[in-house]
Amino acid sequence: MMMEPTVHAKNPLARLPAGAWLMLLLLGWLGNAQAQTADPLPSWNDGATKARIVAFVKAVTGPGGKDFVPAAERIAVFDNDGTLWSEQPMYFQLAFALDRVKALAPQHPEWKSKQPFKAALEGDMKALAAAGEHGLLELVMATHAGNTTEEFAQIVRDWAKTARHPKLSRPYTELTFKPMRELLDYLRANGFRVWIVSGGGVEFLRVFAEDLYGVPPEQVIGSSIKTRYELRDGKPVILRLPQIDFIDDKAGKPVGIHKFIGKRPIAAFGNSDGDFQMLEWTTAASGARLGVIVHHDDGEREFAYDRKSPVGKLDRGLDEAARRGWLVVSMKNDWRAVYAGAP
Amino acid sequence: MMMEPTVHAKNPLARLPAGAWLMLLLLGWLGNAQAQTADPLPSWNDGATKARIVAFVKAVTGPGGKDFVPAAERIAVFDNDGTLWSEQPMYFQLAFALDRVKALAPQHPEWKSKQPFKAALEGDMKALAAAGEHGLLELVMATHAGNTTEEFAQIVRDWAKTARHPKLSRPYTELTFKPMRELLDYLRANGFRVWIVSGGGVEFLRVFAEDLYGVPPEQVIGSSIKTRYELRDGKPVILRLPQIDFIDDKAGKPVGIHKFIGKRPIAAFGNSDGDFQMLEWTTAASGARLGVIVHHDDGEREFAYDRKSPVGKLDRGLDEAARRGWLVVSMKNDWRAVYAGAP
Repeated sequence: MMMEPTVHAKNPLARLPAGAWLMLLLLGWLGNAQAQTADPLPSWNDGATKARIVAFVKAVTGPGGKDFVPAAERIAVFDNDGTLWSEQPMYFQLAFALDRVKALAPQHPEWKSKQPFKAALEGDMKALAAAGEHGLLELVMATHAGNTTEEFAQIVRDWAKTARHPKLSRPYTELTFKPMRELLDYLRANGFRVWIVSGGGVEFLRVFAEDLYGVPPEQVIGSSIKTRYELRDGKPVILRLPQIDFIDDKAGKPVGIHKFIGKRPIAAFGNSDGDFQMLEWTTAASGARLGVIVHHDDGEREFAYDRKSPVGKLDRGLDEAARRGWLVVSMKNDWRAVYAGAP
Repeated sequence: MMMEPTVHAKNPLARLPAGAWLMLLLLGWLGNAQAQTADPLPSWNDGATKARIVAFVKAVTGPGGKDFVPAAERIAVFDNDGTLWSEQPMYFQLAFALDRVKALAPQHPEWKSKQPFKAALEGDMKALAAAGEHGLLELVMATHAGNTTEEFAQIVRDWAKTARHPKLSRPYTELTFKPMRELLDYLRANGFRVWIVSGGGVEFLRVFAEDLYGVPPEQVIGSSIKTRYELRDGKPVILRLPQIDFIDDKAGKPVGIHKFIGKRPIAAFGNSDGDFQMLEWTTAASGARLGVIVHHDDGEREFAYDRKSPVGKLDRGLDEAARRGWLVVSMKNDWRAVYAGAP
């Protein structure tokens, strides 16, 4: 009995006449209806590609449908380089390694005459390529190991603040793909959990993944070097060692997915033959599955490359996509915008 | 204008007199208040141990408090053997390995005369212990590798259906600790995410973790063997190989936590010196931290062991717990019940 007047006094809406109430209800309903029909993928042009992605999401989320998948099993995996951000003219992490060689050079006078460091210091990409996989590995070990995990993350964060893409002259953090970020949000809004499964180094990528993609560290899988737990002046640290632990590329991607997630994804997104087995593993199981290849065919807005590119080579994937039911996204035709810009 | 009568007609509560409304409101409030004060840890005896756990959770979840931790950082890690379920007289996974040797023996007539298999077949625990770490490794490889990940999980599931604890004659799945399961639920209800960080095999444990503890596969970290992705009759599988990939024990636990989670936990629960570095890593950072050691001091309801036990040895942890501010839980005094029983 006491409550009625108290409630009314505190709630200004309670003083409105009945007609106004109805109008508010209707406005609420309209707002809701609009939110439900708003395009979740505005940077994707309307057409078969977008329609297929939306149809897949509707199929696995529609309760009672034959393709319904419970939320706990709605796992989507995304490659990073070339799928969520650019990878030309070189992987961003390689640019970091080269900058790091320059920063460390004063402590290593021998690098001036020793390959692959000499090539890195001189920006001689030809000599760097000639150093091959072994040379690249040497470069990675010299620039990615020898510090603690916290020190390394700080070095990467500091680098990202000033580093600029060599051709686009923009911070690397502005070069994520807007349509793909919308896709991440769209999937999450539909109960998916999203993992990044990258051939790149996991501790490099974790520095960016949460800010740029909303993907927390525990949902980033990547290549790694070994680490060791030890005490430094009585305080525990995790030290990064110059030894490969895991290469999360090609057949390593399903292995990494199984190791970290322990479940098979229902959707996989990649752009190169390094993602082939991840798409194969994802789409080989029964039920509704989505395999997507982002095809870099937009030389004007981004970079055009595929079968013959040393970075992000896409050859077998293009040959087999149709037969395997994988969706090939044309960046040129399917994307209204390319870059997301500043985070 | 049209809406008022429609709403009333459909809602039987709308016909109640004002006094009844008030009573319903009060009942609702009382129910709510009761839910808020209901003991979330009924299997823990009231006392300093329980009070300290509750105080920690309140401190890190109280908005605006000096020890407040945002939900994304509320990460708790639990050892499994001896912390979430029993580990005496031998790790349950060792019991699985021994049963597996028996099941596979017909295909390996040479095992009858070859150690450590001979000891396993004869149940000769003394000879088995004499085979040492190398012998145990041989046993694990022979029983845990050579099949696909899906085959292995099925073998473990089938085993768990009929296997019985040698002393308690109950299914292993009935031997999880009720107070610890309440703790998992209590932490989750307070916005924590819970990982298991076990020295045991990750793929063995993942078979149980979701059903028994509500912990999904992606939140189980453990020791692992290497795997390889390959096609079998055109279908992709992940094959388990007889090579150690990672030992998630002692100093390996912080390494595993960093590898899989990429963040430092704020609470860690263990029971043996194998968990020492995990507790050290967790509690060394600034801010409110909780390190807990479950002490097996209840020979009547479970098993009593610590400093001299070959399984679950707890020696350094007991010496240093007080100085490091770690909470030592007495199973005998702090737990009202021990086992959770059937899942």
